[in-house]
Amino acid sequence: MVMVEAREDVRCDRKAVEAVIAALAARVGNRLVTSQAVREQHGHTLTWIGNQPPDAVVFPQTTAEVQEIVRLCAAERVPVIAFGTGTSLEGQVNAPRGGISLDFRDMNRLIAVHAEDLDCVVEPGMTRKRLNELLHDQGVFFPIDPGADASLGGMAATRASGTNAVRYGTMKDNVLALKVVLADGEVMTTARRAKKSASGYDLTRLIVGSEGTLGIITELTLRLAGIPEAISSGVCPFPSVEAACNATILTIQSGIPVARIELLDALQVRACNLHSKLELPETPMLFVEFHGTEAGVAEQSQRFGDIAAEFGGGPFDWATRAEDRSRLWQARHDAYWAARGMRPGCYPLATDVCVPISRLAECVTETQRDIAASRLFAPIVGHVGDGNFHLSMMVNLEDEAEVARTHAFLERLVERALAMDGTCTGEHGIGQGKMQYLLSEHGEGALAAMCAVKRALDPLGIMNPGKIFNL
Amino acid sequence: MVMVEAREDVRCDRKAVEAVIAALAARVGNRLVTSQAVREQHGHTLTWIGNQPPDAVVFPQTTAEVQEIVRLCAAERVPVIAFGTGTSLEGQVNAPRGGISLDFRDMNRLIAVHAEDLDCVVEPGMTRKRLNELLHDQGVFFPIDPGADASLGGMAATRASGTNAVRYGTMKDNVLALKVVLADGEVMTTARRAKKSASGYDLTRLIVGSEGTLGIITELTLRLAGIPEAISSGVCPFPSVEAACNATILTIQSGIPVARIELLDALQVRACNLHSKLELPETPMLFVEFHGTEAGVAEQSQRFGDIAAEFGGGPFDWATRAEDRSRLWQARHDAYWAARGMRPGCYPLATDVCVPISRLAECVTETQRDIAASRLFAPIVGHVGDGNFHLSMMVNLEDEAEVARTHAFLERLVERALAMDGTCTGEHGIGQGKMQYLLSEHGEGALAAMCAVKRALDPLGIMNPGKIFNL
Repeated sequence: MVMVEAREDVRCDRKAVEAVIAALAARVGNRLVTSQAVREQHGHTLTWIGNQPPDAVVFPQTTAEVQEIVRLCAAERVPVIAFGTGTSLEGQVNAPRGGISLDFRDMNRLIAVHAEDLDCVVEPGMTRKRLNELLHDQGVFFPIDPGADASLGGMAATRASGTNAVRYGTMKDNVLALKVVLADGEVMTTARRAKKSASGYDLTRLIVGSEGTLGIITELTLRLAGIPEAISSGVCPFPSVEAACNATILTIQSGIPVARIELLDALQVRACNLHSKLELPETPMLFVEFHGTEAGVAEQSQRFGDIAAEFGGGPFDWATRAEDRSRLWQARHDAYWAARGMRPGCYPLATDVCVPISRLAECVTETQRDIAASRLFAPIVGHVGDGNFHLSMMVNLEDEAEVARTHAFLERLVERALAMDGTCTGEHGIGQGKMQYLLSEHGEGALAAMCAVKRALDPLGIMNPGKIFNL
Repeated sequence: MVMVEAREDVRCDRKAVEAVIAALAARVGNRLVTSQAVREQHGHTLTWIGNQPPDAVVFPQTTAEVQEIVRLCAAERVPVIAFGTGTSLEGQVNAPRGGISLDFRDMNRLIAVHAEDLDCVVEPGMTRKRLNELLHDQGVFFPIDPGADASLGGMAATRASGTNAVRYGTMKDNVLALKVVLADGEVMTTARRAKKSASGYDLTRLIVGSEGTLGIITELTLRLAGIPEAISSGVCPFPSVEAACNATILTIQSGIPVARIELLDALQVRACNLHSKLELPETPMLFVEFHGTEAGVAEQSQRFGDIAAEFGGGPFDWATRAEDRSRLWQARHDAYWAARGMRPGCYPLATDVCVPISRLAECVTETQRDIAASRLFAPIVGHVGDGNFHLSMMVNLEDEAEVARTHAFLERLVERALAMDGTCTGEHGIGQGKMQYLLSEHGEGALAAMCAVKRALDPLGIMNPGKIFNL
């Protein structure tokens, strides 16, 4: 039973799809798959958004092949949907109008590493964990960590970020250049490998976050960071969410270059204790990590501890031992699974909003009150240095009243964030799940500009249609 | 005598211009000016690019007024050109097709400071120095420093950066949101005040660097940084440009969070010695600055000194006294005037390119050889942490052969940067001066995409026409 029906738009013409499938089969042989199981794996599978499989899945191997596929689809006006690892959370990989899913499994090479320039070139199917394994010996790493072991193409397409963003930025800040196949099959390179440029429009940032609606990414040049000489991390309990948020604000204002600063509310701490066999006090908690020199991280930890104490937090236990660090952060990463474990048989629903950090305590506290009043189960984790927080809701889909309360709650969540000058999504994207909020967030002028850009670059409307907006 | 004639395109219809001027005069009274002197001040004045004055200059006071002006111009198809302080270097403020210059002198308010969120909201006519004076008491500052005391609207429009960019990024990284009047007079807000968002296309970054060709900025939300607790800076001589570049690469790879790292070649050091009454050794020199805690900057300075010594550089004298720091950086900022002083009567020509940092030494060294072989005068300063360097050429316009050699040299400079995967401009923009390089830098696919976006958002072609591309 699926409670959020992804809208079934007018499907593309069946004969057109069959023509494309026949041509593709002739071209790529068994790298074209039309089995029901594989098609369903390439629709949305992770949350209560319905599964809308594409008509076929193709596994391209080169940019030239992607160009051919897009040209075939353009000729028949058949949608094309890029697929990385399928870990997006707002239905970005669904095929509401049918079409061809391009799975980048086979385009996963590390093409070049330029350690002196702190950049590398990868194919879009490369995942972030694999990339960091390959980079490790060269003393550099790719810092964006959205939790899931997502593909880098998908991370760029959804403007992903995660726990490290407070220090290293989001995909917007860490993609130097992209190779992109456009809706007419032409290929463009959005930028040179120079660290900055004032030449022409910023096509890189136009594609980052466009969720496959403007073009298909076939190569990425990524910024890297040097592996820090020393890392220290620790956990710090707080008497309230407000105290934890205020400590975060002062930490950032003081210029302490915190690498990660993650809030877990009391319910999430409880879930993590159960799931990861920890014995943390079940009160709002900050997980913090510092990167720098030995002396630097010691000084940062000391200063953070002082700030925490000022707001009634602490004691701040910090550990530089790699195994302690890993265990804590593993628990943080497993927050979603921990939440699932607390309400077995329920359906997970992950959502996020982001507000200016000065409003974060208020937003989280009001949201907690709303969760309680709505009798819902929704532990909270937050990338609080960015004002971004997530709910890992577990919904009993058998209970119609609970489902209705959930829908109403989600609308209030976004309204609350927007009223505080925030955004309906800090890092999950719009996909299908948040299209309804686009106008109230951006206003008519900006939405009209986005639609004008979409129409200009995809006049036939074949690039991941029915995502972000229904054009 | 002006040696680079800015191309006089077909000027807009005289009757149309007169209709707009009459309507504007009725609307804004003496805030519309048509005197020759004021019109010429609003064309390009700073380098050898010719002066192309607008037909009239208007001084708007509100976004609503800008909307009215743009609507009037759109109705008559008359160009609109935004003007901040006129310090752009590639002819961005010229009016090759005539039209109305919008001077933002009167829209220079600080609208709000959100110190907890490290952001502020300003009008586009605010200059960066004035903003930092106003912010100082709140312990925050706006870090982008392009040298000139430019307006923030202009800095966003040209994607400015400067000496601090190696640590704080460029305007692309430090603009959170923009209010923009589009070509049809509608207004859009490109983003909320949340620190990050995954909602919709990145309109902020689309406008940053678009040089007024997509819309007119009437309000900016800017990211701020906390004023560092301690700042230390110093100068370090090197035996060669290569040694200085290699020390820079290792400094950045080592994760030393250098705030500024500026290369001056021997000729530029000599010019600074003469102009600023310094006694620096006349050899390639790095000016370096660190921001952090007292202990942090001491550690960074120590480490940098060690790295410099490894490449034969040093001694590295570092001073934390504010007056010493100011004197050194003032000399660095006056580099352009110092260069002018060495060849009085000649015409200045400032240009910049940017390459991956691993190619910087090679690019600078080859350029120096080319300067010598071409018998030109061109001291070099570089934001070497970003791979970006500037030439402050002084050209004798009376000498036709020298002018010809200069043109040929400039073409080779860009070709050299592009061949090294660099860009024809790191921070000055395209304007009129570098339009000819756009295709070879970006390729047909990307250029076609830029033109499609331009046509979609400005179908009448009235927004700063004849800049970036001739559409």
